[in-house]
Amino acid sequence: MHQSEHPGQPWPHLDAEKTRTPSLGAAKIPNPRRHSLFVDDEQGVLVNILHPGHGKRPSVASLEQAGPRRMIYFDPPKTKCAVVTCGGICPGTNDVIRSIVMEAHHGYGVSGVLGVRYGLAGFIPKTDPDVMELSPTSVADIHEFGGTVLGTSRGPQDPEDVVDALERLNVGMLFVMGGVGSMRAAQAIQAVTAARGLRIAVVCIPKTVDNDIHFVSRTFGFESAVEKVIEAVRCAHVEATGAPYGIGVVKVMGRESGFIAAAAALSIKEVNFVLAPEEPVVLEGPGGFLPALEARLRRRGHAVVLVAEGAGQDLLPESGLTDASGNKVLGDICGLLISRTKAYFKERLPINLKFIDPSYIIRSVPASGADRAHCNMLGAMAVHAGMAGKTGIMVSRLHEIPVHVPLPLVTVGRKVMDVRSSAWQQVLDTTGQSRLRAEPA
Amino acid sequence: MHQSEHPGQPWPHLDAEKTRTPSLGAAKIPNPRRHSLFVDDEQGVLVNILHPGHGKRPSVASLEQAGPRRMIYFDPPKTKCAVVTCGGICPGTNDVIRSIVMEAHHGYGVSGVLGVRYGLAGFIPKTDPDVMELSPTSVADIHEFGGTVLGTSRGPQDPEDVVDALERLNVGMLFVMGGVGSMRAAQAIQAVTAARGLRIAVVCIPKTVDNDIHFVSRTFGFESAVEKVIEAVRCAHVEATGAPYGIGVVKVMGRESGFIAAAAALSIKEVNFVLAPEEPVVLEGPGGFLPALEARLRRRGHAVVLVAEGAGQDLLPESGLTDASGNKVLGDICGLLISRTKAYFKERLPINLKFIDPSYIIRSVPASGADRAHCNMLGAMAVHAGMAGKTGIMVSRLHEIPVHVPLPLVTVGRKVMDVRSSAWQQVLDTTGQSRLRAEPA
Amino acid sequence: MHQSEHPGQPWPHLDAEKTRTPSLGAAKIPNPRRHSLFVDDEQGVLVNILHPGHGKRPSVASLEQAGPRRMIYFDPPKTKCAVVTCGGICPGTNDVIRSIVMEAHHGYGVSGVLGVRYGLAGFIPKTDPDVMELSPTSVADIHEFGGTVLGTSRGPQDPEDVVDALERLNVGMLFVMGGVGSMRAAQAIQAVTAARGLRIAVVCIPKTVDNDIHFVSRTFGFESAVEKVIEAVRCAHVEATGAPYGIGVVKVMGRESGFIAAAAALSIKEVNFVLAPEEPVVLEGPGGFLPALEARLRRRGHAVVLVAEGAGQDLLPESGLTDASGNKVLGDICGLLISRTKAYFKERLPINLKFIDPSYIIRSVPASGADRAHCNMLGAMAVHAGMAGKTGIMVSRLHEIPVHVPLPLVTVGRKVMDVRSSAWQQVLDTTGQSRLRAEPA
Amino acid sequence: MHQSEHPGQPWPHLDAEKTRTPSLGAAKIPNPRRHSLFVDDEQGVLVNILHPGHGKRPSVASLEQAGPRRMIYFDPPKTKCAVVTCGGICPGTNDVIRSIVMEAHHGYGVSGVLGVRYGLAGFIPKTDPDVMELSPTSVADIHEFGGTVLGTSRGPQDPEDVVDALERLNVGMLFVMGGVGSMRAAQAIQAVTAARGLRIAVVCIPKTVDNDIHFVSRTFGFESAVEKVIEAVRCAHVEATGAPYGIGVVKVMGRESGFIAAAAALSIKEVNFVLAPEEPVVLEGPGGFLPALEARLRRRGHAVVLVAEGAGQDLLPESGLTDASGNKVLGDICGLLISRTKAYFKERLPINLKFIDPSYIIRSVPASGADRAHCNMLGAMAVHAGMAGKTGIMVSRLHEIPVHVPLPLVTVGRKVMDVRSSAWQQVLDTTGQSRLRAEPA
Repeated sequence: MHQSEHPGQPWPHLDAEKTRTPSLGAAKIPNPRRHSLFVDDEQGVLVNILHPGHGKRPSVASLEQAGPRRMIYFDPPKTKCAVVTCGGICPGTNDVIRSIVMEAHHGYGVSGVLGVRYGLAGFIPKTDPDVMELSPTSVADIHEFGGTVLGTSRGPQDPEDVVDALERLNVGMLFVMGGVGSMRAAQAIQAVTAARGLRIAVVCIPKTVDNDIHFVSRTFGFESAVEKVIEAVRCAHVEATGAPYGIGVVKVMGRESGFIAAAAALSIKEVNFVLAPEEPVVLEGPGGFLPALEARLRRRGHAVVLVAEGAGQDLLPESGLTDASGNKVLGDICGLLISRTKAYFKERLPINLKFIDPSYIIRSVPASGADRAHCNMLGAMAVHAGMAGKTGIMVSRLHEIPVHVPLPLVTVGRKVMDVRSSAWQQVLDTTGQSRLRAEPA
Repeated sequence: MHQSEHPGQPWPHLDAEKTRTPSLGAAKIPNPRRHSLFVDDEQGVLVNILHPGHGKRPSVASLEQAGPRRMIYFDPPKTKCAVVTCGGICPGTNDVIRSIVMEAHHGYGVSGVLGVRYGLAGFIPKTDPDVMELSPTSVADIHEFGGTVLGTSRGPQDPEDVVDALERLNVGMLFVMGGVGSMRAAQAIQAVTAARGLRIAVVCIPKTVDNDIHFVSRTFGFESAVEKVIEAVRCAHVEATGAPYGIGVVKVMGRESGFIAAAAALSIKEVNFVLAPEEPVVLEGPGGFLPALEARLRRRGHAVVLVAEGAGQDLLPESGLTDASGNKVLGDICGLLISRTKAYFKERLPINLKFIDPSYIIRSVPASGADRAHCNMLGAMAVHAGMAGKTGIMVSRLHEIPVHVPLPLVTVGRKVMDVRSSAWQQVLDTTGQSRLRAEPA
Repeated sequence: MHQSEHPGQPWPHLDAEKTRTPSLGAAKIPNPRRHSLFVDDEQGVLVNILHPGHGKRPSVASLEQAGPRRMIYFDPPKTKCAVVTCGGICPGTNDVIRSIVMEAHHGYGVSGVLGVRYGLAGFIPKTDPDVMELSPTSVADIHEFGGTVLGTSRGPQDPEDVVDALERLNVGMLFVMGGVGSMRAAQAIQAVTAARGLRIAVVCIPKTVDNDIHFVSRTFGFESAVEKVIEAVRCAHVEATGAPYGIGVVKVMGRESGFIAAAAALSIKEVNFVLAPEEPVVLEGPGGFLPALEARLRRRGHAVVLVAEGAGQDLLPESGLTDASGNKVLGDICGLLISRTKAYFKERLPINLKFIDPSYIIRSVPASGADRAHCNMLGAMAVHAGMAGKTGIMVSRLHEIPVHVPLPLVTVGRKVMDVRSSAWQQVLDTTGQSRLRAEPA
Repeated sequence: MHQSEHPGQPWPHLDAEKTRTPSLGAAKIPNPRRHSLFVDDEQGVLVNILHPGHGKRPSVASLEQAGPRRMIYFDPPKTKCAVVTCGGICPGTNDVIRSIVMEAHHGYGVSGVLGVRYGLAGFIPKTDPDVMELSPTSVADIHEFGGTVLGTSRGPQDPEDVVDALERLNVGMLFVMGGVGSMRAAQAIQAVTAARGLRIAVVCIPKTVDNDIHFVSRTFGFESAVEKVIEAVRCAHVEATGAPYGIGVVKVMGRESGFIAAAAALSIKEVNFVLAPEEPVVLEGPGGFLPALEARLRRRGHAVVLVAEGAGQDLLPESGLTDASGNKVLGDICGLLISRTKAYFKERLPINLKFIDPSYIIRSVPASGADRAHCNMLGAMAVHAGMAGKTGIMVSRLHEIPVHVPLPLVTVGRKVMDVRSSAWQQVLDTTGQSRLRAEPA
């Protein structure tokens, strides 16, 4: 399901200029961390790790490896950080916050870490500005809870206002956790700091349960969320097999991409159909979903359908509305699917359809162990990057190695699955579904 | 939350006649179980275990204790049983099936156990009649899965047809798992067997995730379901605290009773309001839900509301429809609640409302350990009762002891919570909610 | 597994005098709790709820029902409570602490709740006396963690010293959580307060993962612990079936009683032998464990043995040592069992024996949902009892109803399983094991 | 923790010859899988994905990418496969078995899949040879159970005997699941098939809970096992904080490497010391473990120590014994640690030490969702490789991409952690422990 699995798909536009990590300036202060192995700015991680074959030369585009630098830019005792969480809740967010606080305090000895309440809105005076001091003691146990202790909100704020607040609060490093939209906001903030010539580093940590961010193999919390989806699918399977011609329909997150649905289907074999935003949904006619579902029901007596919320939007009227984050309000694909399915089978088979929408349950649980390790690493890497004066970047894990990604590489758009990849082919194989397409007449 | 906790509430109509356990006739065959402690038909379990106070005499109404009898009615090697599961899925159903098969085979050595597919409909020829042989090997691992391996369906069938099938299949004992509706069907079946003078024992095992059956302290699967509700409530709390003026609304099962919602609220203190079918919901005005919610939000910034699906039905237009089981189709209380809440707060507070409906997830999980032990016991007790020739009864656990309950005591109606009990008072105390009632003008 | 399930076993010595609840004096202050349903001192709960049969009179011995009283003894704003946790860790302990604090503050408005650190030793100056103020805020999330936030220790302390400390701290109510040993210490403390004529109520909450306390149907945390044992047994079964002639041996807590082992065996059918302290273990010879194990292995190829740590002590030399709580140090029954098993099979079968000792894992987990509700109830009941001036008692749940139990009824000794009960017979039935006894020559 | 994270460590000896995938011969039959995206033999995955820096050339050594080939070697309807599981139990083993069966049947339509019972011993007549037919129906639910439905055993068998059996059984593809030892056995078997000129493909799937296999980023089941270790560590932390000067010691698997211990420490921050086989343990003196533990206890009052079973072996006398797999029997490091710790603190601090050994619990659980997806992929890739005629290889996931690894690259030895890597440095950082080393005098 990872970018690197897409054979033959070169990374576009990765010239040396684009992958270069921006920074505030020369790092001249020795890193106070004792006994640490330091990473050199020269070390990189190859982006495209597929070798095209004998005699051909693999791409050598690389991203700067993340990690503690021998020399740092900020003087820790004089430096204050701020952390802000934006957008939807995601498992592991508190782990990252905790890791930032622990690394900043224990690893570097900064003078303080501020937590900004309720997203970027927390910076803005008129909407009840709110910051809280975060200490190793106050964050010691927060990782045992889902959500974010800072609270979150959607929507951008005027970057000038945010930078005003940063200046007033005397913040040297701003850590922004969020998705592509939040990173665009961070990019705008960084542009203002640069325009004003401020010594403020802006470092992002990718946070989205949808896994739809470029140059991130897998976002933290994604695995934890998929684990909950698997539980819901298992329940749907139990319901489907418990009644004659039982159909279990499960709705999961995924506005523009079906990563969650696909990963769940690859984990739990009880899924028979995955509907994802990346592939058009054809309901009727040869090659369509409903005839395929009928064939499955006649053959096996039950079926499970896993639907990403953004699938089949072309079948629905455009709402024309947008939410607070500026995302368009999605049409209700499951509602359509259920009514069309019932209508289709009315004269064909006495189906028993059960609909399960785990909704927020999948994103508000605490993180799994593997996600915790991931979060701990990201938090530490963000602090290392910030202390070294890197700015306008996102820390990420690419091919299992921590890297720095310049924000412009990330904010071009959301990552989606390539339905011509072997990864999506595996989904088709494991579910046994064919591509849903109108067959040529 | 148990019947026995209702002080001062005598059990109605429990004269000796009503509590007497009916049977097919004299048990004259020695029980083949070795080393077993046998229970005497004379032993009873007191129904009302509250002592009214000094000088007063407690009620002595009792139900026959369940357990293996020294003498049995059916000759095991000549006896065949049948098991059927009716109504909705409930955690632990497979455990009971397994226990019946194991006890019948290993404990008594019956000649066979038939599993009837998809509820009582499985007995009826025209709808694809279907029975499967259940052996210790075939059921060995079924308890690890939710749902029922037999499948289930809703709705009664003609008892004459069912008894025809029982005769054709040469079944001596029929075990019916289901709720009050299914037990009414079982009662009708038993009446036909009696009218025809057949040697067929009809023994019920109470199965409802709603815990709404009289003379059952707590139905199996209830605890397992509540455990999943607690998870959903925890998620709702995370969502509610993650946003300014966050409200988490969780919908749970409970058509006519709020046992699940109440038990969850007593377990997880994050619930601030429980809306149950037993107490009318008043939305506006002094003493109403919305002003109380506003007060909570202004005081604490977030709130969790737990809603049983059957709550507040008087606020909704009657649908006039019924489902396959003859239950009336409920109005959408959560839809109403959400729209009214949004309208109420529109000019008052910028709320963030998140709705979670775990729906089938709470009933299709495998059973918890405590429920497993409960199920194992019920299955064994049902076989003991059937082998001893008891008929027209339900096996149950009352005050932690297994008993036989004559079906007429059970089929009078569904159990509901007494909102004047100390149990419901505990719910009000723990949530901090007041009784929602229009205060007198 | 409950006392009430022991047919024909009348409760000894339960005359009216022994079941009467002691108190500090007349309760003359109106209970400040609004809208609460109050419980009358006259209301009782029958102890023996079995009816002996037609024409016979059931026992009417009863225990006082617990709950809020209309009139209370202590004036809340002038009253301070203290909570202390003694002995081993048990799931749900933090839930009870939280419930006490919430009820005392929100229900009554007491002036403060002190938490005593590390058991009764926390009262004693020389060993670093330590109390912490417990507020609704400070305990809000503690139930999500296992163990006890107060810490605990073993061993009694001089009751005079403890009462000195209570007087100095101006404590009106002392809540002691612990097992039989701790309740003996509480009884001694209460005796000193009585001798000194102090207005100090001593109220105990039974806390033992072993479930070995009289007049408690099931101690809190027991179910949660059994759930973890079930996990360990499942692993042992996996190991046993994964190798030829595989044997999985699981050791669980249970110094003098096998409640945990028995409950686990009743929940998970994969247990083939339960060794409990209540029944002597015979290893060799006809009717012995090893030949029975051999028969099982030859028949099925694998076996799981569940051993309570206190089983088979007569097979081991007495250590003569005692631990800090005064309990004798147990011999290593599993070590003996393993070496004897290996020796026995050396020439008989190529066994693969795997030993699993989950040890502290089963007691240090957070509580399950059902246990949480239980804990919440017990904490509230303890506060109700204390506020009403009850002293020298334990709050308990008997036959699902909260009661007050005078301490002398509890401190006579630890509860053990009756191996002639139907409950133990169920264990033998479910495992398929016979009673392990030397067969008469 | 992954190989690729070791900066500056070039992969030794990776010339083109060594990375070339051996095969039985030309693949001339069209792959019957419909709609599948095929992988070309020319496609490779770079082994070392670190870029050494500007102006330098990264290594281009690559391994063949795994996946379905357009042309295959075996004619499916005439081809039979065999699966065998060797060595210890590991979460996800049944998932791999299931995936192999499903892919072989549904993807290719082979004539049959045999499951060999109890490891390689199942091939050998004298020790009760045993094979079972595996069908899509018989394996449908096995992934819900831990362990392996085939059973397993340790120790090699004469490769000539194994090949005799393969010939008799007419097996075309042999799938061997196991660790380095099992892959050596597979290599020997492949050598015999080659020497005899047989058309038998030998394909390995790495299976070890220890994660100690070269060219595997992370073995399947590893994450699931670490999740259980985290639970045990959390319990140890609860125990340690529940008593004055509490120390929780947790023992985990890891004979020659500390991957499990390190991964757990990176996930759960409550670990204060990790003792791994890769770094010598110094107990006393400046820089030693006991003084560091004392400092921690004096500063924070409690500590958790996580010990891989193979740590500190130089402190123990050599047993000189080996187990059935030929591994040397390890000395009891935890026993030593506990006695030395008690002795050290006897006159210093009144410690409370609790020891937890989750042992088999961590390896016999079912797999987590992420591991399931991994297993499903590996099973399918193994079938693709075998059908294409690849032999003498292991399928693996390297940098998140499936690859073929020639067995000689794997059987040179077990992978261990590089204690000079940034990964191990992260462990030191997160625990706060220093390297345990005798400081120079």
